[in-house]
Amino acid sequence: EESRLDHYSRKQSSITAPERWIVKKFLNIVGNPAIYIRLPDHSKITTHQQSPAIGMYLLDRGMLWKFLSNPGLHFGEGYSAGRILVEGDLLEFLNTIIKTRPQLHHKNYISQYLLQGFSKNNNNDVSTSQENIYHHYDVGNDFYKLWLDKEMVYTCAYYPSLEASLEQAQFSKLDYVCRKLRLKPGETVIEAGCGWGSLARHMAKHYGVNVKAYNISPSQIAEARSRAKAEGLDSLVEFIEDDYRNINTQCDAFVSIGMLEHVGSSHYETLGGVIDKCLKPDGRGLIHSIGQNEAVPMNPWLMKHIFPGGYTPTLREMMQVFEPFAFTITDVESLRLHYARTLTDWLQRFDEHEEAIREMFDENFLRTWRLYLAGSIANFSSGTLNLFQVMFTRTAMNDIPLTRAYLYHENENITEDTKAWNHVKS
Amino acid sequence: EESRLDHYSRKQSSITAPERWIVKKFLNIVGNPAIYIRLPDHSKITTHQQSPAIGMYLLDRGMLWKFLSNPGLHFGEGYSAGRILVEGDLLEFLNTIIKTRPQLHHKNYISQYLLQGFSKNNNNDVSTSQENIYHHYDVGNDFYKLWLDKEMVYTCAYYPSLEASLEQAQFSKLDYVCRKLRLKPGETVIEAGCGWGSLARHMAKHYGVNVKAYNISPSQIAEARSRAKAEGLDSLVEFIEDDYRNINTQCDAFVSIGMLEHVGSSHYETLGGVIDKCLKPDGRGLIHSIGQNEAVPMNPWLMKHIFPGGYTPTLREMMQVFEPFAFTITDVESLRLHYARTLTDWLQRFDEHEEAIREMFDENFLRTWRLYLAGSIANFSSGTLNLFQVMFTRTAMNDIPLTRAYLYHENENITEDTKAWNHVKS
Repeated sequence: EESRLDHYSRKQSSITAPERWIVKKFLNIVGNPAIYIRLPDHSKITTHQQSPAIGMYLLDRGMLWKFLSNPGLHFGEGYSAGRILVEGDLLEFLNTIIKTRPQLHHKNYISQYLLQGFSKNNNNDVSTSQENIYHHYDVGNDFYKLWLDKEMVYTCAYYPSLEASLEQAQFSKLDYVCRKLRLKPGETVIEAGCGWGSLARHMAKHYGVNVKAYNISPSQIAEARSRAKAEGLDSLVEFIEDDYRNINTQCDAFVSIGMLEHVGSSHYETLGGVIDKCLKPDGRGLIHSIGQNEAVPMNPWLMKHIFPGGYTPTLREMMQVFEPFAFTITDVESLRLHYARTLTDWLQRFDEHEEAIREMFDENFLRTWRLYLAGSIANFSSGTLNLFQVMFTRTAMNDIPLTRAYLYHENENITEDTKAWNHVKS
Repeated sequence: EESRLDHYSRKQSSITAPERWIVKKFLNIVGNPAIYIRLPDHSKITTHQQSPAIGMYLLDRGMLWKFLSNPGLHFGEGYSAGRILVEGDLLEFLNTIIKTRPQLHHKNYISQYLLQGFSKNNNNDVSTSQENIYHHYDVGNDFYKLWLDKEMVYTCAYYPSLEASLEQAQFSKLDYVCRKLRLKPGETVIEAGCGWGSLARHMAKHYGVNVKAYNISPSQIAEARSRAKAEGLDSLVEFIEDDYRNINTQCDAFVSIGMLEHVGSSHYETLGGVIDKCLKPDGRGLIHSIGQNEAVPMNPWLMKHIFPGGYTPTLREMMQVFEPFAFTITDVESLRLHYARTLTDWLQRFDEHEEAIREMFDENFLRTWRLYLAGSIANFSSGTLNLFQVMFTRTAMNDIPLTRAYLYHENENITEDTKAWNHVKS
């Protein structure tokens, strides 16, 4: 490691005064975070009043200029390639930067560019969606098994208490979603984007419903089918390798957990139209998605290397799924800090399997994924990202519980409550 | 009554075949509801397959043509003036019509016009807002005392059970809002649009907070002050007769119950800016407003006679308050059927005081208000109107409860939960 650093630094001509000035200016614009930037000549630059203990080290002048030209993209690329090192804890470094960063509505164009970089338009037609999903979800089931819970739930968990393990919290999430949907035995549920099938299996096993679960990732569908068969659930759960746009059967409940991030905002109304076609008059729906408070494009590095075609909507943007079809929003819950905690649990398991992952892939892959997981923790902790669970029904659906207490009391009799509204209906 | 009808019908020339054809066409367009229209010559027209038992009676030809030219406006005006009679129960009649009515996204221009009528642009600048509010809320405190609960809460109640009385349900609503805001003794709360001061007094009395409550209705402010003084709460609650646009003090919680309906969508960002100026970094906010699932103007009769300047936003439109300032939405609850039930309780009390109200005002006023209350029940029951309670904080506010269980468990220790998130934060 030492000789590698020496090798780089020998290659550098000394850093010029204008270069130092630009690095300072950059630190000003991003809010003078409590970090330093170490330049290829080993000198540290900071604009923070104290002398910060953590920082990033740009190993060569090429990297310095690349970084300054598009930090949102090249920090990640440089980090993955080992041409940018973080000195100190990666998560603490990311938290510090994101916490200090000005919110978009307080930014000018220059700082917007530096913070966001270029953004390309998303193309999420059927065939591009297939490529995009393949890129992330077909990296290998064995890789995901290393650090997800045993049911392989790759979305935000729900911690009823902070003592809950990841396994418990994912079980709680699956069950919470089922209770929100008020599933009754024999009902039909459509799930759009079913991952490795954890929710579909949970619904069938614990609520006796028939599930049609859609996904366009071949590896996920294969694993989902094999697990359902092993658990004797294959008569209740059908896994269908197809795009959400082709769903067209009637259902009592429509659920989608962590798919909307891949749909792209220009297709929200299409998704709404699919739901409008499928949901019975008394049907219930739930869409669970990563979101954000300001409508800004996804970080360009994340978009290029982790989630091609991805976009995390604001709640206003999410409404484009529902409003054109006059669905009524019955409930929205933010589970932001639950996702920060989920990711913390994932990162811990990921780190515990560092060696195995390096062997499966390479150092670059390991650094890329570590940055993605740690960066996500920082974004959810700081509120840059959010997690919305949105429940909906058709406009005139009056078969709804009196209050939300049934979600929090073990033995709440929902049916009684529901019937009670008949007084009001007339 | 008989002689009045005879007088009208003698005045009518007989109804022509084209007139009958147009009335039939009208019934087709509004979805063939199970009602009849009785024409001035006493003949009934219906397009429903059964022979409906309820209907409306257009007493004279002038009214018939007025009604057909703008039914959204002239049904109400004709009903108030006694030139349109409803034969059968008014609420049942309204429920039947609204239930059958096609949703906006399925309508063509003609049916849109027939269902919505003309809509004028809202002007809600400071002085027009004053006139608009005066029109409705300064009709007389004694009138409202006849049919509201004893604390004079003129917004949707919250029924923890359907056995709850209006008094209990309004107390529950006030307390539910306080618990959602997690008020702590000594904190400062700003309330925008405080009605007769029920929530302000509840917060001061039961949560020991200081309240600055704003309102531009002189009668409401006078009553609010006198009640606070009588209860010895005037050191904690300050009632300020001023527009929400002039609020500029710091607060730990910002709450507004039933004001947004009067703000007008072009001013939502202004309201958001006021909140952005006032809310401390760890502050909590709640906005409670009538809403709807489709962005359509308020019924023209309601706009002209009941709520000048009024508009009930979709959830997407409400987000214009929050998104420009990157507030995070932590919770949205729909209380639609609670409002249908609240209005049912109000209408019952209203009807019990029919004589007193007729004496206070006149027959026209009585019919106008009865139609407004019954129409509102029908709109909330059918989902044409909705009620949203939206909670929010600033983006990076991490002092939030682990789950929503604290709202439904009597002795839930919120503080413990809240602190627990500190594990996640950095």
